Amino acid sequence: MFSITPSARLRPSPFFESTVADGVTGFTTYNHMLMPTGYGKPEEEYWRLINDVSMWDVAVERQIQLKGPDAAKLAQILSPRDLSKCKIGQGKYVALCNHQGIVINDPILLKLSEDCFWLSIADSNILFWARAIANERGLNVDINEPDVSPLAVQGPKAEDVVASIFGDWIRDLRYFWFKETEIEGIPVAVARSGWSKQGGFELYLMDGSKGGQLWQIVKEAGQPFNIGPGNPNNTERIESGLLSWGGDTDDSTNPFEIRLGKFVDLHVADEVVGIQALRAIAEQGPKRHQLGVQLDVSTPLEQPFHWFNISQNGKPVGHQTNLTWSHRLEKNIGFALVSTQCAVGDEVQVSDNQRTMTGTLCELPFL
Amino acid sequence: MFSITPSARLRPSPFFESTVADGVTGFTTYNHMLMPTGYGKPEEEYWRLINDVSMWDVAVERQIQLKGPDAAKLAQILSPRDLSKCKIGQGKYVALCNHQGIVINDPILLKLSEDCFWLSIADSNILFWARAIANERGLNVDINEPDVSPLAVQGPKAEDVVASIFGDWIRDLRYFWFKETEIEGIPVAVARSGWSKQGGFELYLMDGSKGGQLWQIVKEAGQPFNIGPGNPNNTERIESGLLSWGGDTDDSTNPFEIRLGKFVDLHVADEVVGIQALRAIAEQGPKRHQLGVQLDVSTPLEQPFHWFNISQNGKPVGHQTNLTWSHRLEKNIGFALVSTQCAVGDEVQVSDNQRTMTGTLCELPFL
Repeated sequence: MFSITPSARLRPSPFFESTVADGVTGFTTYNHMLMPTGYGKPEEEYWRLINDVSMWDVAVERQIQLKGPDAAKLAQILSPRDLSKCKIGQGKYVALCNHQGIVINDPILLKLSEDCFWLSIADSNILFWARAIANERGLNVDINEPDVSPLAVQGPKAEDVVASIFGDWIRDLRYFWFKETEIEGIPVAVARSGWSKQGGFELYLMDGSKGGQLWQIVKEAGQPFNIGPGNPNNTERIESGLLSWGGDTDDSTNPFEIRLGKFVDLHVADEVVGIQALRAIAEQGPKRHQLGVQLDVSTPLEQPFHWFNISQNGKPVGHQTNLTWSHRLEKNIGFALVSTQCAVGDEVQVSDNQRTMTGTLCELPFL
Repeated sequence: MFSITPSARLRPSPFFESTVADGVTGFTTYNHMLMPTGYGKPEEEYWRLINDVSMWDVAVERQIQLKGPDAAKLAQILSPRDLSKCKIGQGKYVALCNHQGIVINDPILLKLSEDCFWLSIADSNILFWARAIANERGLNVDINEPDVSPLAVQGPKAEDVVASIFGDWIRDLRYFWFKETEIEGIPVAVARSGWSKQGGFELYLMDGSKGGQLWQIVKEAGQPFNIGPGNPNNTERIESGLLSWGGDTDDSTNPFEIRLGKFVDLHVADEVVGIQALRAIAEQGPKRHQLGVQLDVSTPLEQPFHWFNISQNGKPVGHQTNLTWSHRLEKNIGFALVSTQCAVGDEVQVSDNQRTMTGTLCELPFL
């Protein structure tokens, strides 16, 4: 593939030098930062996540911090999920929507205190968005991107690694809960979260100058457990049905189309951005839904830069929004964002302009 | 360098296949799209722009279209530059600011009709921003990203190339003015603009399915003029003093710090986002200003992913925000965003954490 050209528009992460030292070979960009996408052995990196434990530079998951007297009010205004029962130390997955009910990001919201929240964001500019809403409404809240950079530890042995660093108390952390602590003087929030279904933690590094030091601590603690460098694994996340905002969504995607309806509470206050539109969409029912698609072609296809078209009996019905070769299923699989008239079990035609393939719609997740 | 991994989050441009066919070797990402950064012969590509003519895939300059009864009102609300005299067919360079007077983008605003405007944006999300402001203020305007992708033709012979395609009328186009036309059935807006100081045009392709066809037309018309593929040229733009938003700015940069004060009209209406803050900053005077810096080290340095620190007599005074080897000056040069206590002619120390270099502050542009 093509090389990526250095630019100050694309910020390196605090773990950048460590990932280079450990042999990173590819990057993507995400929130104007570089994110490692591999270390040259994709299948080995996949099985490491499935069987052992993998460590990922996910500093690109930037935190948008809402802090001040109106922080809680703003958090709720931005989130069509009822946050009234969210406790300090708890995280919640939320689908931020615009005024038309279109999903503009799907962060984890972390409640650090009654007047301080982080939105741990996907790849879109929520700093500008939150400031626009807060300033237009005259809210008393500071909105910034603090010096916080997550390092993910994922896989069935992640808990053992993280416990060996921080102590056994981390075994009691519930899913999406977190706790602020430190290790060797490095301030870290330890959260049970991560963009895989293999279990694991994210260590929110709160001092960017200590990235190399934290990387080394995790790497050394993980040696007995066969740890190695990896990245948010596209194959595992597709098998597991995890959404990639911006990859699997477009500028008209609402939460009900992409299995996020359960995170929308239609009873929240009218001041919540998009809630009126979401109530209307919920009443009418969504026009599309998200299923899986298994292609019949039996050799691994290459990951594309674009969506494929899906049709049924010659009629366009939607798109395949991602593609991977599943090592466990030994099939080419992906997500289908298709008309609600399409159902599990339907045969479809998938076309990438150059060729047309056949496939079958199925349930998500695949595994 | 490292390779870039395919993802549907990073959209290819309508000219993607053509640039691959013509030997593109590197990319950056910009507005969630891939932008070519070179074709393997950087010095040759530079001199082609200086002496002849270069063609660039700049589809990443996305258009944010404001259309509807309140489009003009919104354009002015977003822009702290007086647009009241802007004519249909005219473009104006504007510094979009947030409520605190911080620059969030520096687009060309193009007025297509009394109720339709494009913001031809730099690398930040103005689609979300404009929608947030418009919806919060209850304006009647549609805000979308239309199927429009600029192809730049830049260099001293660009006018001859573009005239040979569209006719001699393009020679009368004034700077930043544009006209909608078509060539071989392809709808295009021809503008005298572009991110170089070598003169040229941008062809705003208005049908993404025709990218390969338009590329071929320009390539063939340019043969007598020694045209070749290139990209927004970092060396030329630094020599010429052109700003890169996000590269040369940070989350606290106001227009007065970066030579954009002349595009701020303090008399615009109070409803313009950020105008109160800008008036206050103008009254107090900015704390930083943007100068050039020439380094004393005499061999070409590599383009970095980050800013360098600048200090004077051991005291931090700001940052060097970009770096290039100037082929015409035969020096390492860049922009300095430094305290207003620093002046042209001052000697400074520039440090990238690994080493400290000496240099001298100078006027912008360099050439």
